Amino acid sequence: MRVLVTGAAGMIGRKLVARLVGDGTVAGRDITALDLHDIVAPAKPDARFACDIFAGDLSDSAQIATLIGRSPDVVFHLAGIVSGEAEADFDLGFRVNFDGTRALFDAIRLSGTCPRVVFSSSIAVFGGPFPKVIPDEFHTIPLSSYGTQKLVGEALLTDYSRRGFMDGIGIRLPTICVRPGKANKAASSFFSGIIREPLNGKEATLPVPRSVVHTHASPRSAVEFLVHAAGLSGEAVGPRRCLTMPGVAVTVGEQIEALERIAGNDLAALVRDEPDEAVWALVKNWPTRFEAKRARDLGFEAETSFDDIVRIHIEDELGGSL
Amino acid sequence: MRVLVTGAAGMIGRKLVARLVGDGTVAGRDITALDLHDIVAPAKPDARFACDIFAGDLSDSAQIATLIGRSPDVVFHLAGIVSGEAEADFDLGFRVNFDGTRALFDAIRLSGTCPRVVFSSSIAVFGGPFPKVIPDEFHTIPLSSYGTQKLVGEALLTDYSRRGFMDGIGIRLPTICVRPGKANKAASSFFSGIIREPLNGKEATLPVPRSVVHTHASPRSAVEFLVHAAGLSGEAVGPRRCLTMPGVAVTVGEQIEALERIAGNDLAALVRDEPDEAVWALVKNWPTRFEAKRARDLGFEAETSFDDIVRIHIEDELGGSL
Repeated sequence: MRVLVTGAAGMIGRKLVARLVGDGTVAGRDITALDLHDIVAPAKPDARFACDIFAGDLSDSAQIATLIGRSPDVVFHLAGIVSGEAEADFDLGFRVNFDGTRALFDAIRLSGTCPRVVFSSSIAVFGGPFPKVIPDEFHTIPLSSYGTQKLVGEALLTDYSRRGFMDGIGIRLPTICVRPGKANKAASSFFSGIIREPLNGKEATLPVPRSVVHTHASPRSAVEFLVHAAGLSGEAVGPRRCLTMPGVAVTVGEQIEALERIAGNDLAALVRDEPDEAVWALVKNWPTRFEAKRARDLGFEAETSFDDIVRIHIEDELGGSL
Repeated sequence: MRVLVTGAAGMIGRKLVARLVGDGTVAGRDITALDLHDIVAPAKPDARFACDIFAGDLSDSAQIATLIGRSPDVVFHLAGIVSGEAEADFDLGFRVNFDGTRALFDAIRLSGTCPRVVFSSSIAVFGGPFPKVIPDEFHTIPLSSYGTQKLVGEALLTDYSRRGFMDGIGIRLPTICVRPGKANKAASSFFSGIIREPLNGKEATLPVPRSVVHTHASPRSAVEFLVHAAGLSGEAVGPRRCLTMPGVAVTVGEQIEALERIAGNDLAALVRDEPDEAVWALVKNWPTRFEAKRARDLGFEAETSFDDIVRIHIEDELGGSL
């Protein structure tokens, strides 16, 4: 069957593509063709099946018509403007995350093909104040334009699935940690930085108190969530098509303790507390713990400790040793 | 100040216009101009201030540019395709309720004027299964395209208000009862029909069990909600800009008992039980009771008994007596 991945050049997209190419199957069926799309051309993988590469803007209707005209059986819709950029550039965020997602979903609707669509949503659909543990039935009132755009994507996916235009599953990713590569400008960047940088022998700054609680899943789990969602029974999920993914809820202090256990005191000591009021003002309104009961009941699994998250980073990004 | 009402020819729109014309003020300020818009030309009221009439499609961008170009200080956005029609005609519902609302909000955004926008949303943003009493923080997963479109309107209003493009308040109306006029094809029509028809000496059919619980507010309350929302402090409401309105939660049996108390046994006996599986299949998934704590705390008030709702219908629609 044919699989389409949007956002295939992104961090998660690249790992998903590697997984699909390695497995050769998804949702219990053989992959016979893989279409990869992103704003910049994704790398062409070395696969046993045809891989076609598409570069362009997701809000370009001709591009979308081409992609959906190829009748994918499974669509992984990962493309999007990230939260910080969507907040800084209102027009860009709405054009890509809102109009682009709608255009993709409408092209699917009008194609009459009803593929499985796995949509990467985000816990940014939630806005504080929060209860201690956020239940699956907690309302979604975003406090960012990015969260708003993801929420609209979820609403369309839910209605289009109910009407039989597509067979969608939305997965709300927690913070993905440890992000490989360079630090980015996201306010959440430090959650990965305080692990990644010391493991590379570099200093990392911590802008928030060590008591901050946050929920994490590894990039490997993120890919597993996507692949698992592709194979779920839509009937088992029911009309509530968007699921909050599980993760590991820990304090920043516990993150650093895990680093210490695995990499030793010297590396963990490279984390330097450097309070930043601007970052703290954002982070203190972020969700902390999720119940994620429905997702767990449907077989989604994340790591069970932050130690595992550190070890996965060492295995997948550092060749297995320090 | 200038006030714009979209959907001004509808049942609630007409009552709102009469109220605004009668009061001559809203949100504590004198009305100096009133612009009325609907798909069919609203009646021109006899007012002490200028009233201009506009007829056209809300998804017509030139029309919206004209309306917002007049720089209204308060916008009551009531226009929309009703739930049954939005479900039957996917394109029409999305064009008017989704694109039309977005176009209106974007015209406001680009005008730089930041008016108070009162958006009539609906309890259709909620989808079952429900807890016994739906709390304010219950998630909004609609089971209709109409509910989806209202949810998207809420999400845009919330984000646009957070960003300072408008000063929006969304009010989720419960079922409005007793609706005057003829029965319509909405599945909810019987909730009004079983009161309105007997009061006119006519038979009414009841398609669902008398044990069904539902929440109602009178048309007079609906207008009061809108007017109250126009005058609320945005800061007091906070970032969660959409509020579930209060109402009277009663069984259908209790509705009929109220009719009996006020109009006598003979008229109440005109309600004939005639189970309709198709209607029941819909109604049994509808929300029953709401906590509506935030709205009550912010001063929104509904009737306290269904007797009041029957009396208001007699006063406002039947000249005060049977």
